[in-house]
Parts: sequence; structure tokens; C-alpha cells
Amino acid sequence: MDYASLRTQHPDHWRLATAIRVLAMDAVAAAKSGHSGMPMGMADVATVLFKNHLKFDASAPDWADRDRFILSAGHGSMLIYALLHLTGYADMTLAQIKNFRQWGAITAGHPEYGHAKGVETTTGPLGQGIANSIGFAMAEEHLRARWGAKIQNHYTYVIAGDGCLMEGVSQEAIGLAGRHKLSKLIVLWDDNGITIDGKVSLSDVTDQKARFAASGWDVFECDGHDPVAIDRAITAAKASARPALVACKTHIAVGSSAQDTSKGHGALTDAKLIADTRAVYGWEHGAFEIPADIKAEWEAIGSRGATERAEWEARIAALAPAKRAEFERIFARGLPKRLGAAIRAVKKAAIEAPKAMASRSASEIVLKAVNPIVTDTMGGSADLTGSNNTKTEDLGVFDVDSRKGRYVYWGIREHGMAAAMNGMALHGGVRPYSGTFMAFTDYARPSMRLSALMGIPVVYVMTHDSIGLGEDGPTHQPVEHLAISRATPNTLVFRPADLVETAEAWEVALEQTATPSVISLSRQNLAPARSQNTAKNLVAQGGYVLAEAEGKRQAILIATGSEVEIALKARDLLQADGIGTRVVSMPCMELFAQQDEAYRKRVLPAGPVRVGIEAAVRAGGWDRWLLGERARKSDFVGMTSFGASAPAERLYQEFGITAEATVAKVKALL
Amino acid sequence: MDYASLRTQHPDHWRLATAIRVLAMDAVAAAKSGHSGMPMGMADVATVLFKNHLKFDASAPDWADRDRFILSAGHGSMLIYALLHLTGYADMTLAQIKNFRQWGAITAGHPEYGHAKGVETTTGPLGQGIANSIGFAMAEEHLRARWGAKIQNHYTYVIAGDGCLMEGVSQEAIGLAGRHKLSKLIVLWDDNGITIDGKVSLSDVTDQKARFAASGWDVFECDGHDPVAIDRAITAAKASARPALVACKTHIAVGSSAQDTSKGHGALTDAKLIADTRAVYGWEHGAFEIPADIKAEWEAIGSRGATERAEWEARIAALAPAKRAEFERIFARGLPKRLGAAIRAVKKAAIEAPKAMASRSASEIVLKAVNPIVTDTMGGSADLTGSNNTKTEDLGVFDVDSRKGRYVYWGIREHGMAAAMNGMALHGGVRPYSGTFMAFTDYARPSMRLSALMGIPVVYVMTHDSIGLGEDGPTHQPVEHLAISRATPNTLVFRPADLVETAEAWEVALEQTATPSVISLSRQNLAPARSQNTAKNLVAQGGYVLAEAEGKRQAILIATGSEVEIALKARDLLQADGIGTRVVSMPCMELFAQQDEAYRKRVLPAGPVRVGIEAAVRAGGWDRWLLGERARKSDFVGMTSFGASAPAERLYQEFGITAEATVAKVKALL
Repeated sequence: MDYASLRTQHPDHWRLATAIRVLAMDAVAAAKSGHSGMPMGMADVATVLFKNHLKFDASAPDWADRDRFILSAGHGSMLIYALLHLTGYADMTLAQIKNFRQWGAITAGHPEYGHAKGVETTTGPLGQGIANSIGFAMAEEHLRARWGAKIQNHYTYVIAGDGCLMEGVSQEAIGLAGRHKLSKLIVLWDDNGITIDGKVSLSDVTDQKARFAASGWDVFECDGHDPVAIDRAITAAKASARPALVACKTHIAVGSSAQDTSKGHGALTDAKLIADTRAVYGWEHGAFEIPADIKAEWEAIGSRGATERAEWEARIAALAPAKRAEFERIFARGLPKRLGAAIRAVKKAAIEAPKAMASRSASEIVLKAVNPIVTDTMGGSADLTGSNNTKTEDLGVFDVDSRKGRYVYWGIREHGMAAAMNGMALHGGVRPYSGTFMAFTDYARPSMRLSALMGIPVVYVMTHDSIGLGEDGPTHQPVEHLAISRATPNTLVFRPADLVETAEAWEVALEQTATPSVISLSRQNLAPARSQNTAKNLVAQGGYVLAEAEGKRQAILIATGSEVEIALKARDLLQADGIGTRVVSMPCMELFAQQDEAYRKRVLPAGPVRVGIEAAVRAGGWDRWLLGERARKSDFVGMTSFGASAPAERLYQEFGITAEATVAKVKALL
Repeated sequence: MDYASLRTQHPDHWRLATAIRVLAMDAVAAAKSGHSGMPMGMADVATVLFKNHLKFDASAPDWADRDRFILSAGHGSMLIYALLHLTGYADMTLAQIKNFRQWGAITAGHPEYGHAKGVETTTGPLGQGIANSIGFAMAEEHLRARWGAKIQNHYTYVIAGDGCLMEGVSQEAIGLAGRHKLSKLIVLWDDNGITIDGKVSLSDVTDQKARFAASGWDVFECDGHDPVAIDRAITAAKASARPALVACKTHIAVGSSAQDTSKGHGALTDAKLIADTRAVYGWEHGAFEIPADIKAEWEAIGSRGATERAEWEARIAALAPAKRAEFERIFARGLPKRLGAAIRAVKKAAIEAPKAMASRSASEIVLKAVNPIVTDTMGGSADLTGSNNTKTEDLGVFDVDSRKGRYVYWGIREHGMAAAMNGMALHGGVRPYSGTFMAFTDYARPSMRLSALMGIPVVYVMTHDSIGLGEDGPTHQPVEHLAISRATPNTLVFRPADLVETAEAWEVALEQTATPSVISLSRQNLAPARSQNTAKNLVAQGGYVLAEAEGKRQAILIATGSEVEIALKARDLLQADGIGTRVVSMPCMELFAQQDEAYRKRVLPAGPVRVGIEAAVRAGGWDRWLLGERARKSDFVGMTSFGASAPAERLYQEFGITAEATVAKVKALL
């Protein structure tokens, strides 16, 4: 069946879908940039989805039980903007559409979470949306198990393109979805055979349907321009007991002279091409002009879910007050009041019975206190559970037959894990944290950046955070990864020195509602740094005086995490030589930078020489504290190269990260 | 057939394989860390491979036509160390085996390229080896086409574990291999069903055989302990016209009480367990003791290829002198002498006919001069050919029926592309460079780190390197990616300002033999920065005085890439106000840092105020030049947040990266 005959056979559908197509063409042409062909090609699928299937109410975009719609092929952003405008989302005015890709508009080049209502996640970097969707679907399964199907029961739909499916992260996502039988996850594959460089066959011959089936998906197919076929396929996918791929055979830039070409993938701006395409569509209206009757039909679709939503709200209102408050808390990213006392209790116990331990073990102790109270946490690890210390007994394991479980065995999939955590946080109602070795920040990095860009409070538990990892060697030893996370805007990087600081770091991380955290933890045992109990959270200040100089203050040692112990030892040696030495613990540079000048000056006064100590590269933010902020003379004890394979103590000696080396540098400066 | 009966049925094979097993057990036990179970489980497969198939000569590890053996499951490093020792690689002494994972040993925790001969690539971060192998196999296909099968004709074998196959990058690799019908690539999958957290089924249910088949691989199977079955499968795989997966069903930690458990995955150190396992193996020798007859058998395997190698050397010796010199040049990473003149010609032409252009276009001009001369380059792009400007006409396209082609359409696979480039560079004989948008450094990052760690001169062409990318918005706009690459040891990051600097940057990048380069290029047009022709390569100094102050030198503006234009404009404004202003162009901070103090002082003298300008975060190495190096007062014009979606000019205005903002900062400092 060709699309021209579809136009005559399904005229009602055709005009709805064409409204999307022309809006996309007009907006891209006005912006002189963007991607016309994808919205044009997938307008039919999207129309059927929104008209017949998607549970949503344009007047209540935050309805917690709405179906989630994720445009993984984010370059086709005009598809979602057109849908949101047509169905009547209040913020998606025609002015916004006309302002596509312009400064201040909510219609960013790629869909940006937090700009327009109805955009569930930021997409554009390919593969992210489909990988986010695992987290959305897991959160839904989990919340449905805990709250019942009357409170949480929705589908997650994804539109993914060939690019999404070529990115490796898609395989991690597909594997997770298949393993966990995420039956309410439906991926609509825009099978148009075109990428920027040309035909998909230039670079890939994968049989995607066989690939998905190999990981436990059900696979459906349709002509992506035939509304009847599309509807039949989506209906079947919804009924499947496994995650479903719907392969939608489409024509990119359908109906235009650029159809089925890589030119059609990009921005169609030629006035004649656009006019000709309008003629093919039988669309006789001007640029950005949507006839009132078509708009009304679309708005009826937008309010189709209003009754269902109202009924749902009534059920929420009917919950017992405490239960209702809890439901509202978890979706508002609130914390139970009891958390503060629990954190303080961990700190007090740590001070009263000081004990050397790895900070990853400290993190487990904190999680044992946190998880029973903050019952919306979901933890996990990328196949390093015993090493990341992320699992506490009370969590249970999230699995096909135990959806209430709160611990996820992510497998060897750091990237997919991070992307899924983004999806969980975006879905709401769960609070994700998960671990891997810090060196594998590299694998998770594209999604970690998006946590920060979207402003969602995902917590990354990154253990084995230096050469202290030892024998596994330089591939596993981070040296530049603190620098990477610290260079990323809107990211808090914590490197706690002991159990007390770890408890405080977790508390601050959990308090975030719009910022992800990286908690950098040691493999090796660390002596306790804090000896005095404080109710106050000192880590919240980012840096603070841990040990004051005795006598005249001649030196300040600034250290983080596992190197605070070295700083304290160096201080002892220096004080023994009569050199008054202050130790500043700096567990979070970002928070310290946020303190006012007066506080920073109290911690880092002018005058004394300064030495920074961190088993990582100096580029990790050190120059500000060592060269700026009233600094006079300074030096740094850390790494200038990759690490090596040997026991940790030997590595610290060989790379010169010791109290003795610190003392020598202080003396050389004085 | 169970392995106990295999012992009696194949006693000759058994004792060879058991020598590997016990060496692995003994070395891990001595180190008290490492992974025993994988070498134990895969010893049979490796024995058959080395005994019957692998083309190698232990006395000539650098033989350019050897088969390549890649241990993608790098945690099983004792497997390869045992093989290298047993077959007689001179550097892999028993002392090295006994010193497993200790300081200074070549037997690092994970196989490190450059430590032991016979280790073709650094593995450990999972999925990297299998993804490297694509580059190895592509290089072989290409060189075979160009030099003939008598000069280059070998297989690439990979041992990959479940972890390698779960990592997303494996899918990118599988897709590339299938697309390019890399028939001499054979992946031996250690199908033991165990990961660190437990059974593979905890996190994955993928039918790997179906998955590989879906991407165009031939699939074979064997009992991974039965030497006859293994041999049959490898023989069939070699005969296949497509890349081949050999699924080897194995028992991790075979024969020990930890067999088939996640405990067996780790370090087996219990003396009784080891003694019991030796008994099961019928191995009556002490720790690290290999009977002379078994060692002799293994050494015979190690010298099996000596004749073939000598014949190959004779063929090389018989090449016409110029051809032979060229063969030696490309494997020695040498450059044709003509390159220098070609680069100087590009520079001269640029000066004589100055023209505003994007630095990515400048890069294309340089490549047009480079590629016909440096004929071992292989270029490519992750589906952004027209945007990265990486393709020159003369290259031709590498494809199934055009193996001589030098341009690779990598598809939307940044990570796989980077890993494959590592494989190409490691194979030798080709010189890889490829491009993507700089923001997608994130996707390629795990392999970019390994380029640096291994010390191989891969060139990353990263275009659209700032908010200057414009409308695509913050997901596509790097702000922290210069910082990420600059924080990575052994990496040169170039950010050229115009065609002249781009030519110089390429020249320095091509001269590297042990360091990867990142070339950061603009999307937007840039005015020429250099107006005087110099034969000397100024970029090689990292930073230099581009424009001197007129009158008293009161300010120094330091800028890179696209912001050099802004610095020059700001200088004009400041000079007009009588403020003598020097402009320093800093295209490569790493190289500038390597210059001697005297030179750096000439470029950045004490006294004048300094303002750095770069459309990126200050954390990208700026504090050293703005706070250190004799700095007095300074400021920075750059980004403190993610970008936004709008035309580039508007973004520069809104984020305050302008000549006017620079002038204001200078005046505030004075």
C-alpha cells in the first residue's frame, strides 16, 4: 500500500498526521535548521499512538500515572513539539513552535527535559531515550507492585531510530528489558533505512528484529504509514507479556522530493520543496496554519484521558492520609524527617567506636541506615555488588517475580545502568543509586552528563577511586575521573575521608532535588578522620578545618578522601618539627566554592603555604585552591601519570603520595 | 562428555592445558589477587588455538604477519601470561610469572600493551578487546588488499567473556564486523555462565548466538574442554566467509571446588582448594613447576611458525627497495619526508589568500594535502562525514569489495569507532583518524583513555567544539570536554584558531608515535588569525605570541581556537583605548607546559593582567595560566554552565563570550 492511496483511504487520519508534518516542515524551515524528515516519516505512527493508545491528559502533564512517551530519536524534536501543541499542552503555544531552536524558547533543538511539559527526558545523544526507558518501565513495575494497579499502571512508549539502535547502549537496554520482562515497554522503531551519511546499509546490516528477539523481546511489524496496520501492531504489543519492538517501516521525509534520502534527514528549507510537498499532502493552508477543525480534533485527543485522570486523582485523594502523603513525598523527591536523626546516629556511633574501614564499607553502613527509612531508594551495581557495597539486606532484589525488590543486578552495563537510573529519576517515585568502579565512569559518562544537564538527583556510587585499588592496575585506577566529574556543570562530587564524612555526603546527596552526585569511595581501609561528634553536617560546607595548627600556622594541607589520612600524618610530622600545620578536609569542592568569601577565607587564609593532596591529577580542580583564593606558595602531591599494577601501599610509595613527601614539599616551600 | 573423561581420552592435550591451569592458580595464589577461574576454564580452548591454529613465532613477537590474539576478557590475564611463558617468549620468564601483579613486573593485573611481548592490546575494561579486534581485522583486510596475501594474511582471534558481550560497545563491534564481512575475525566466547555477581542469568537472558547471527556472523559451537570439538569449531570458523563466533561451553575454575560459581571467577587462594584441584588434574608438581618435557612441547608450539616467518621475511627482503622501505615506514609509524613541505605549502597559501572558514573546513583542506602523501592514513566518521569534514576524495571507501579504500563509514558508533581505531593503530601499517561531534567524546571516552594509556597515536577529529554549534543545543555543545581530554595523561589536545594553526596541529599530531591527539574544531567560520607566514611550526610550542602589545604592555589575552578571533577584536578595542594588549594563542596547553620556563616566561611575563578566553569551562586547565606562571591579576571569559539552543552568535552574546566582555574584564582588573 503506498502512502498516496493511504491519503484517500484514511482521510481523517491523514489530516491529523499531516498537521504534524507541516508544522515540522514550517518550523524547521523558519529556523533554517533541524530535522524535517523524521517527524514527517513518523507522523502516522505518532498520530495513531496519541489518538488510540497513549494515556495522557494535556491539561495535567504531571499526572503520575500517565503513559510515558519518549522520543529517543531526539533530533526529530518537532514531532513531539507538534504533538504537544496540537493536543493542547498550555505551554506549547504556536509562538513557541514558530520560535523553534531560538534563544529562550522551550522548543530547543533537541527535546530538553524541564523546558516543555510533556518532554519526559532530554534526548538527542542517540540511544539515551531507549536506555532511559528501561528505568521508566522498571519504576512503573516497581511502583505498581508496591502501590497497586489502581495507582500505578501505565505503558512506556519509545520512538527510536536507526541511530539509537546502532549505539551500543541500546544493546545494554535491550538486554535489561528482556531479562526483566518489562512487558509495558514498547519501542516503536522508525525503520526508514536512512542515516546522515546515507543508507543504513552503508554501516549496518543487522537484522534488528532478530536482535531484539534474541534478548527476549516480542517483535511486531507494520507499514508505518498505514493507520490500521499501526494500530493493530501497537495493540498486539500492548498485549505481549514481554517488552515489544514494533518495527515501523517508514519513508523519511515522506511525500517530499527528499523522501528516502539522507537529504531528507536534515533541514528541508527550500520553499519550492515545501510547497510541492504541501501539494502532495493536499494541504492548502499557510505556514503554521492549522485549521480550527483539525486543531479541535487534536485537542479532543488531548483531553481524551481527562476522565481517567480525574478518577485516578479521586483514588489518590481516597488514600489514607499517611499513605497519600507518602505518595506525594516520593514524587516530590522529599525526604522522611527521620533521616537526619539516622544520619546523626551513624556519625555518633562512628565517633564512639572509631574503626579503620574502606569508605565503600562506610557507605554500606550508611545505606543500612538510610534504606529502611528512605524507602523509595533503588540500589544496584554493574556486576560489582560485593565491591561497591551497594546492597543492603532489606532491599530485596528487583526481579520478574519480585517487583517490590529494590536492588537491581545491572550486569556489566555501566552505561545502560546510568541511563536507566536517569529514567527512574525522571519517572519519579523512586530514587536511584548504583555503583561501579570509578574508572568506569568512562563507560557511564554520556548518561552522567545528562543527569547533570537534566538536573535530576541520581547518585553514582563510584568505588575503588584511586591507585588505592592496587593490583588490578591502571585500566582500573582512576586518575582523571574526579577531574571529569568536577568539570561537569551541576554535579556534586563527594570524596569522603571516613565514615562520618561518608554519612554526611550521603545526607547532602539525598537532599538534592535537581543535582546528581558522584560519591567517590576507597577500596582500601582508612583511619577515621573525624574524632569529634557534630550534629552539624560539615561536608555540606564542602571544605572545613579538620585539624588546627598548634603554634604559629605556617602550612595548610588540603586533602580529600583517602588522602586525608596522609595529611593528618604529615601534620603530625610537621608539628613535631615545630611547623604549625592546619589540615583542611575538602570532601566536595563544588560546595566549598559555593560558600561565601568570608567562610572560604577562614578555612584558607592568606599566609601559610599550602599543599594539596589527592591521588589523582591536579587538573581535578586543585589550582583554584593552590594558586587562587589568597594563595602565596603552594604545591601538590598527587598523580601526573596513569597508575600501575601492584599492591596499593607500594603504589602510594612509588608515586610519592605519602606523608613524608608532603612534609618535604611543605619544607621546600617554607 | 565430562572433563574428567577428557583427561583420560586426550592425555597429551590435557597436560599442556593443565600447565596453563596450574600456572594461573599458582600466580594468583602468590599475588593473593587476580582471577583464577577464567584461565582454568579457557585453557583447553587456548591450547588448541595455540597448538593447531595460531600463526606465531615466540622468538619474533613483532612479526607483522602474525595472527593476532586478543584476550578481551583481560581479567584472565594469567591465561596469556602462561601461554607466553610456556611457548617461550623471551621476556616472559618464570620470575615474571611469580611476580604477577607486583611493582615493575610485566605481568600486570590486566594485560598491558607495551609491557609483555605478545600482548597485542590493553584489556580489562570489558568489551574493549573485542571492539579493538574490528580495527585489527580491518587493518589486515586493507593491507592484504594493498600488499598482497604473501605480505599480509592473518587471522585475528579474540577470547571474550560474558562481560565483554554485555557491554554495549560489543554490539557496535559486532555490527561493524558483520557489515564488513571480516571473515578472518574469530571470536571465541568463553560461555561459562558466571559473572562476579552470580549467574549470567541474574542480569541477562540474551541468546548470544542468535544475536551474532542477526548481525551477519557465522556461529559455531563446541564443548570448550574437548580438544577435538574445539579444533573442529575453529577449523570451521576459519573457513567461514563471514566473521565467526565460536561459542565455547566451559566450566569456570574447572576441576576445583569453586567450579561453576562466582567464587571461581575471582582469586582462588585457599591452599587446600589448590591442592585438591591439582589432584583432580593429576598434576603432581610443585608450585610454578613445569616438567621439562611439557615445557619442551610448549616451546615446540612456540617455534612452530619459525619457518613460515622466515619465508615471510625473505619475501619482505625481496621487495623492491622503495616498497620495502615503505612497508617498514608504515609499521614504524614514520612519516614521508614530503609531508613537511606540503604542510608549509598549505600555510603559505592560507596566508596569501586569507579567508574566513570553520576550522573543520580547514582540517579538510589539510587532509587533502596530507592523505595523498601519508598513504597509510585511514579516515572515518561516526555518521557525520559531511560535518566532520574527514573525507577526502582520494581515500576511496573501505568496503567489502573495495578493501583498498581508506575511508570508513563507522555508523552511529563513536565508542566502537574509537576502539577500532585503537585496534588499527596497534595492528600497525595504518594510521587511523576519525571524527564525531566533540560532545560525543563522552561516548568514545573509554577507548580514548586507552589510546592514551597504551600510548598509540590515534587522532580524534572532534568538530562542533563549543556553543558555536548553535541550534542543536546543550546536548550537542561541549563545555567540559576540553577539560576531560586535557585531564587525561598522555593526550595532546589541539584547538587551532585558523587554517594555519590547523595545518600545524595536524603536523604535530601526525608526528606522534606514542601519544593520541584530540583536534578540537569549530563548526562556525573563523577569521584568519595568523597573517605572517612562518616555516616554523608555532603550534608545536603549544602557545605563542600572536599579536604583540603596542605601547606599554598592560594586558595579555590568552585564547584558543574560535575565541582567538574574539581576543584579537578585544585587543583592537583595548589598544584604541591606549591599553597595550598582547594576544597569546594557546592551541595546545600540554605542549606549552612542556616548553622551558624561559620560553613560557617570554610568552607569559609577570606584570600585565591576564584574561583567558575559551567557550568552555575554566576547569579545562586555565587556572595554571591565569593564577600560576607569574600571574598577578586575572579573569576568565568562558562558560560556567551547559549551553542552550539558539543560533551561535546569539549564544556567544547571551553567555557573554565577546570582545566587549573581555575588554570590560581587562579594565576591571587594571
